[in-house]
Amino acid sequence: MDQARLHKLLRDVKAGKVELEDAFARLKDLPFADLGYANLDLHRPLRGGFPEVVFGESKSVDQLKGIVSALRERPGVVIVTRITDEKATVCLDVAPEGRHYPQARMFVIHRKVKRLGRVAVVTAGTSDIPVAEEAAVTAEALGAPVTRIYDVGVAGIHRLLKRREEIAAAKAAVVIAGMEGALASAVGGLVGIPVVAVPTSVGYGASFGGVAALLGMLNSCSPNVSVVNIDNGFGGGFYASLIARK
Amino acid sequence: MDQARLHKLLRDVKAGKVELEDAFARLKDLPFADLGYANLDLHRPLRGGFPEVVFGESKSVDQLKGIVSALRERPGVVIVTRITDEKATVCLDVAPEGRHYPQARMFVIHRKVKRLGRVAVVTAGTSDIPVAEEAAVTAEALGAPVTRIYDVGVAGIHRLLKRREEIAAAKAAVVIAGMEGALASAVGGLVGIPVVAVPTSVGYGASFGGVAALLGMLNSCSPNVSVVNIDNGFGGGFYASLIARK
Amino acid sequence: MDQARLHKLLRDVKAGKVELEDAFARLKDLPFADLGYANLDLHRPLRGGFPEVVFGESKSVDQLKGIVSALRERPGVVIVTRITDEKATVCLDVAPEGRHYPQARMFVIHRKVKRLGRVAVVTAGTSDIPVAEEAAVTAEALGAPVTRIYDVGVAGIHRLLKRREEIAAAKAAVVIAGMEGALASAVGGLVGIPVVAVPTSVGYGASFGGVAALLGMLNSCSPNVSVVNIDNGFGGGFYASLIARK
Amino acid sequence: MDQARLHKLLRDVKAGKVELEDAFARLKDLPFADLGYANLDLHRPLRGGFPEVVFGESKSVDQLKGIVSALRERPGVVIVTRITDEKATVCLDVAPEGRHYPQARMFVIHRKVKRLGRVAVVTAGTSDIPVAEEAAVTAEALGAPVTRIYDVGVAGIHRLLKRREEIAAAKAAVVIAGMEGALASAVGGLVGIPVVAVPTSVGYGASFGGVAALLGMLNSCSPNVSVVNIDNGFGGGFYASLIARK
Amino acid sequence: MDQARLHKLLRDVKAGKVELEDAFARLKDLPFADLGYANLDLHRPLRGGFPEVVFGESKSVDQLKGIVSALRERPGVVIVTRITDEKATVCLDVAPEGRHYPQARMFVIHRKVKRLGRVAVVTAGTSDIPVAEEAAVTAEALGAPVTRIYDVGVAGIHRLLKRREEIAAAKAAVVIAGMEGALASAVGGLVGIPVVAVPTSVGYGASFGGVAALLGMLNSCSPNVSVVNIDNGFGGGFYASLIARK
Amino acid sequence: MDQARLHKLLRDVKAGKVELEDAFARLKDLPFADLGYANLDLHRPLRGGFPEVVFGESKSVDQLKGIVSALRERPGVVIVTRITDEKATVCLDVAPEGRHYPQARMFVIHRKVKRLGRVAVVTAGTSDIPVAEEAAVTAEALGAPVTRIYDVGVAGIHRLLKRREEIAAAKAAVVIAGMEGALASAVGGLVGIPVVAVPTSVGYGASFGGVAALLGMLNSCSPNVSVVNIDNGFGGGFYASLIARK
Amino acid sequence: MDQARLHKLLRDVKAGKVELEDAFARLKDLPFADLGYANLDLHRPLRGGFPEVVFGESKSVDQLKGIVSALRERPGVVIVTRITDEKATVCLDVAPEGRHYPQARMFVIHRKVKRLGRVAVVTAGTSDIPVAEEAAVTAEALGAPVTRIYDVGVAGIHRLLKRREEIAAAKAAVVIAGMEGALASAVGGLVGIPVVAVPTSVGYGASFGGVAALLGMLNSCSPNVSVVNIDNGFGGGFYASLIARK
Amino acid sequence: MDQARLHKLLRDVKAGKVELEDAFARLKDLPFADLGYANLDLHRPLRGGFPEVVFGESKSVDQLKGIVSALRERPGVVIVTRITDEKATVCLDVAPEGRHYPQARMFVIHRKVKRLGRVAVVTAGTSDIPVAEEAAVTAEALGAPVTRIYDVGVAGIHRLLKRREEIAAAKAAVVIAGMEGALASAVGGLVGIPVVAVPTSVGYGASFGGVAALLGMLNSCSPNVSVVNIDNGFGGGFYASLIARK
Repeated sequence: MDQARLHKLLRDVKAGKVELEDAFARLKDLPFADLGYANLDLHRPLRGGFPEVVFGESKSVDQLKGIVSALRERPGVVIVTRITDEKATVCLDVAPEGRHYPQARMFVIHRKVKRLGRVAVVTAGTSDIPVAEEAAVTAEALGAPVTRIYDVGVAGIHRLLKRREEIAAAKAAVVIAGMEGALASAVGGLVGIPVVAVPTSVGYGASFGGVAALLGMLNSCSPNVSVVNIDNGFGGGFYASLIARK
Repeated sequence: MDQARLHKLLRDVKAGKVELEDAFARLKDLPFADLGYANLDLHRPLRGGFPEVVFGESKSVDQLKGIVSALRERPGVVIVTRITDEKATVCLDVAPEGRHYPQARMFVIHRKVKRLGRVAVVTAGTSDIPVAEEAAVTAEALGAPVTRIYDVGVAGIHRLLKRREEIAAAKAAVVIAGMEGALASAVGGLVGIPVVAVPTSVGYGASFGGVAALLGMLNSCSPNVSVVNIDNGFGGGFYASLIARK
Repeated sequence: MDQARLHKLLRDVKAGKVELEDAFARLKDLPFADLGYANLDLHRPLRGGFPEVVFGESKSVDQLKGIVSALRERPGVVIVTRITDEKATVCLDVAPEGRHYPQARMFVIHRKVKRLGRVAVVTAGTSDIPVAEEAAVTAEALGAPVTRIYDVGVAGIHRLLKRREEIAAAKAAVVIAGMEGALASAVGGLVGIPVVAVPTSVGYGASFGGVAALLGMLNSCSPNVSVVNIDNGFGGGFYASLIARK
Repeated sequence: MDQARLHKLLRDVKAGKVELEDAFARLKDLPFADLGYANLDLHRPLRGGFPEVVFGESKSVDQLKGIVSALRERPGVVIVTRITDEKATVCLDVAPEGRHYPQARMFVIHRKVKRLGRVAVVTAGTSDIPVAEEAAVTAEALGAPVTRIYDVGVAGIHRLLKRREEIAAAKAAVVIAGMEGALASAVGGLVGIPVVAVPTSVGYGASFGGVAALLGMLNSCSPNVSVVNIDNGFGGGFYASLIARK
Repeated sequence: MDQARLHKLLRDVKAGKVELEDAFARLKDLPFADLGYANLDLHRPLRGGFPEVVFGESKSVDQLKGIVSALRERPGVVIVTRITDEKATVCLDVAPEGRHYPQARMFVIHRKVKRLGRVAVVTAGTSDIPVAEEAAVTAEALGAPVTRIYDVGVAGIHRLLKRREEIAAAKAAVVIAGMEGALASAVGGLVGIPVVAVPTSVGYGASFGGVAALLGMLNSCSPNVSVVNIDNGFGGGFYASLIARK
Repeated sequence: MDQARLHKLLRDVKAGKVELEDAFARLKDLPFADLGYANLDLHRPLRGGFPEVVFGESKSVDQLKGIVSALRERPGVVIVTRITDEKATVCLDVAPEGRHYPQARMFVIHRKVKRLGRVAVVTAGTSDIPVAEEAAVTAEALGAPVTRIYDVGVAGIHRLLKRREEIAAAKAAVVIAGMEGALASAVGGLVGIPVVAVPTSVGYGASFGGVAALLGMLNSCSPNVSVVNIDNGFGGGFYASLIARK
Repeated sequence: MDQARLHKLLRDVKAGKVELEDAFARLKDLPFADLGYANLDLHRPLRGGFPEVVFGESKSVDQLKGIVSALRERPGVVIVTRITDEKATVCLDVAPEGRHYPQARMFVIHRKVKRLGRVAVVTAGTSDIPVAEEAAVTAEALGAPVTRIYDVGVAGIHRLLKRREEIAAAKAAVVIAGMEGALASAVGGLVGIPVVAVPTSVGYGASFGGVAALLGMLNSCSPNVSVVNIDNGFGGGFYASLIARK
Repeated sequence: MDQARLHKLLRDVKAGKVELEDAFARLKDLPFADLGYANLDLHRPLRGGFPEVVFGESKSVDQLKGIVSALRERPGVVIVTRITDEKATVCLDVAPEGRHYPQARMFVIHRKVKRLGRVAVVTAGTSDIPVAEEAAVTAEALGAPVTRIYDVGVAGIHRLLKRREEIAAAKAAVVIAGMEGALASAVGGLVGIPVVAVPTSVGYGASFGGVAALLGMLNSCSPNVSVVNIDNGFGGGFYASLIARK
């Protein structure tokens, strides 16, 4: 029940067009969640063009077709993550105005969004780049200009030190690392901005599919580091963009 | 080597007061880390009165005495975490201008700081309150007004729904929960602000000292949720304050 | 040794047709487990048409053929779980009166069963639907009408709230969720009926193949939640049906 | 806002005593959660005298005093779990009508409740008895007569077989076992009723504080077994009582 | 129902003293488990004086008193494990014919038993000796002469090699080791007899309370190695004694 | 250096044919391991025709060909485990006197061996049969007659009870179970013989590739149960055969 | 900025060719990390021809082509690890002076390097050989002569004892083992040189992809054992070579 | 049997003083391990005064007294680790020439040893110092001069960079860190010397008693890093000293 209908109901009560008992029933039985839902919907636009996101991996080609068709009719940015090239082709058929980012494994329908503050995306190695691109493309779609700083792992700390100023110039940094995950702490120690750490499942042996990096990041001694799920580049880019809102 | 001294050295070179070889040696051997250190130090004040933090648990009474004596001479806020009542008494002896927060197990020497945006601190149960107070007192010491919303766990979702507006009015929320950790997702789904999730070791059985809550929070379906270490109330409050900087 | 034969033996003893020592030997050596077996068999019908269940994944096509041929001769419902389309075709060849449920990956030979109370099957996301369908088809085969409520995860709590009445109207709810598993607690908090939680292996990163959801569900603060094995849709549907017996 | 006040508001609108805009504001701003809260409260009594439960372990003596004082004024059963003898004395001081169950580590204020179906509480060993008593006392407080069958572990299967009829006569069984947890499967295979399995942390070596039992129970081949958290006797008794409602 | 009563029942049937229907009822309803129980009891003596075992750790002083009083009246060996000195004193009060083994933390009432083959008990370090003594005292109580070979860990393999003949002369070896657990493999490779490996929780760091040793033993490349639970000296001694039966 | 050569050396020393220093050098430098090796070799035959075992999974087709060619020249039994049908064909080409056991995934060259005592091989489910056959074929190759008792899991305990006598008649039992692993305890409780438990990786969800069964078996309350590695049918059969030696 | 350019800048300052402010700016803005980088580069040659290493597994064929083309222009040894035969062919096309080691899955461009001390590479089984060859080829490429001692696991300890002298003659040993990992301790106990232990993921069941071996090695009682990551043959060979530098 | 006795035996054979058969028997039965033992003993001194080490934690006061009394009679360095102040007093009573290191929790009887190369001991935080002192005191006792560089964790990378030259000047570095363990990689990337990483159990939350640091160190991208057990300061100091031998 939206505001207009609530207004009308009250007017009708006053005008005697609706019986008291009827109005009572409609208001009493008013499913509060519907109201809640409406509230939430009203708030959605306030969140500022934030995206409709589709996790592409668990969707069939047909499901994707349907979802993308529906979402392109809406005003907000549309982001599809974890898609194969084949699924990307399907998305492009349905929504040729969208764009496929093969390295990020994403499909995005860009919309005009409010410009956010800058986000730095930093990786330890070259194998972390697909996750990093997922973060970077997400942040760009949401309106944040992105500085990409790749392959600056802790084992060659000087490469990181050279890029410190660039990272510090951002509003938030997404730090992406597999294996030991130490880069998040190192970046956190070098700059004063919030760091969103994304562990990656890159690695072998006792990296345990990202668990070693995850634990390293959670145990960071830099208090400006928080962590999202393993390989969750989208989450990292999204969260950094939230912080970068002006 | 700071800027003034570098300036003087160059003038002296030009003026012939310093031999070329001497200047070369001093510049060549210039420990880059020192320069780096200086750079970092120069940046520290830019970070805005952010605190000197002492992890009290691993310090002896004598060490605490020495550290607090030293830090009270400096301009910034001083935060001591995880202290017993006995250690707090020692801190108060040394720095009577400080304040002891027994529930948060903290000692703080407050300083005039720039006012930050509001931070909401939300807990699932009453047992999470000590960690929550650690977060709240940290945020307040850093300049953020704090809204405390305690005991609104997912098993009684209506209690949370009643407080949604208050949470949404903050710049960032710290959500603190043990056992299943579901509250972070629920809050993340209700509001558009960044949520910093702090798992707590409260619980028994298969809560595994906070691991169940930690995993629940990392697997949150709300992309506006990031996670810090188990029981790390200070980290949660600090990170949320960073986000709340204007 | 069944009842008839026991009866006859005693008559023969009385009639002197069987020597005392002979009867003693036959009764003394009577394998107690056989008697036990009989007892158990006698009790089976009391359980009310509960199904013969075949775990299809570990059976070869030939084994399936044999088992289904045998079971269709018996009176009870026959349920085959975790089958591929290819295996389903084989089942249909053997027992054309059965039905294949592709989404649930099941084959069922329905029988007339006593009607049970209603069961609600609730999922957090769309990827949980195959496990949910396994639960729902199982419950239906056992005689329980099923209310399907899919994709009402905690990150969008309002979607769940809208469906509360429907869930509350059931005798038991099966709640199926991967990732964080918080939905079980939320449903448990909203309704007073027993909730059977089924963690799913859907997810990535630190969901660890369903362990995160499993731990979340075990640590539920709602005391009306119990848990079955990861992805065990059949178990969830069966257990809820047991509760829904009138 | 309760029903009476909503009725009055509508009457006042009709009567012109309240301005349309005023009514609109009051209804529009009606915190949906409040309404939700009311709904939930209305439903609580429908759940049938189910208890107010206090987890005593994490409460201070003073907190307990306050909580028990408050709860004894309410109509429902009051259950305090995991209390020391000292805390029990405090509870008895405040509410002398209550009763202390030392073995179950509980304090209960009994109230007249509707009689439920019978619940069987079964343990593998004698060390599981404290958790079992927590389950049994809970079920009794909720109105279920309880059959206690203790020390019938799988390593001496004949002891269990002797008690089969007694278990089968109940509406639900709580099966409590540490170490390997096999008893839940064995009971599940012997009877057709729902079994609620409670792993206990009793054991040593590779029992890992109840994890071995928990895994054994989750992997039960008997589909009439579901599991609650380690040592959660209260949860087991509560859940079984829910099932035993007529 | 024992054999005598069964005999009598049949005689009474034949003599017409018991109605057919009565006899049928008594036999039909004969709880098979009772019969099973009897069977098992009949078999117990066949197992040859094997012990009544009491896990002392989880028993109160009063419970121990009662149990030991009762067991000393029976013919078999009585073994109480994991007892403190205080509990041992209590046992000695009740059964002064018993013996306390402080290092093994056991109390044993020895009985005349059939002599078994020799058992070797081997440890990696000196800290493993309490568990080793538990194994050795158990084996001795059961009738096996024991060769103790302590402190011959893999890091000083020559110490083990010197004792090879002694180990090879036994019918079975119990190998007890913490930390890495490699000794079981080494002994298994040196001798052809069955080795029962007991991991101990001795160790620190990544020994994880015996898990490292347990995994090492389970992964032994010597096929004559099997494993019992961490710190389960009793189990190791018992199992080796079973093998050493002639 | 074998005994004959040692004899000859001493004779030569005595006869003056070998210089003292020469003899000293040859004896002093005598690689002790060689002597050890010889000792061990001398002992090997004492172990009684125990097999040469090849773990086929990690061998290439060419390696297998070479190894089987070499081993068939030796006197003992040859056992190749974990082979595909393709590898079996290769083995048969090289050693047509051998036999392929497809269900056990083994290739065996049988030899005349001393007859051992009987071994029972027991499984919980039908999916455990491949591992069980590996155990059974191994035991048979080593000389032990085998009683196969399959599909008698704890969830249908009566099926196990019916077979108790057969198991008790063996010298040792191999019990093979996935999922919960409770069967080992149950068998251990029913019979007095040593039980070798083999957890299998059969199962899904929280069975964790055999870990749940492994933990259940390690935590068995029956002291006549020991455990070998997950899926290690060969190890189970070998160990039981060792016990069954007369 | 290298030394020559720094020299020239100072000369230019003195000569008045460069303005003071200009020089100040160039020195002040001198990215300290660049200087650090230069420093590190200057140190690199001091490390003695140590290799450029490429982890081939995560590189595409095109990336490999580019990287190898670039690296072959540089003076140092080039090592590519974890490559398929197909990728090796590509490497050989680009750099025909290189060599492919199929068993080690490596491609190496050898360069004249300083001869290091000898390294022993020891394995427990034949399945560990690929990792061992990775270690051995790495050490050889770095200048260390290598003694290969394969298949000397602890279960046949005599095979190891025979080779003790050869191992002791090296400057460092790389010990490679899966399953239980006990070989590292055994070697450590036999020789006084540093042992670098490499756990391998070879194995099945409770070897957990190398974790059992890793834990065994970390818990080694020989203090001359340190550990690198699971399957990290390159790391083992590299580290041993570092130790073997004269 | 030592060399002199072997010599004499051969002379006696030659001289006819010992019968051939006697000599044969004595040599044939010569326990090879004894010879092995002798060999090993002969090699011990070659290892260069390396210490007798006693793990004090698991020794009683009486055991310590006995062991230290015995060891002080021998020539080598004596190291007792993990002792309380009380145990240290006992050691000093017995061996007043020894020295107690309270921070390192060690007692050492120093002996004249060959001077080794320099070892750097580096820690991330101040809480790691006890483990670091254990490493440093061990290295010093073995003859290595030690450079202590404490509290240079990755979160303040500039502190580490300032000390790079000092670390690089050592022959080996022991790097000690809890929480995330990233320092090992950072040091490994800055210097070319071998790094021995010691994870510490310092930390809270998801540091899991050192596991997070351990995993971080094992996953180091710097190939000059190897790892010893959690909190194993002695092992770290010992291993680095081995490397530092000239």
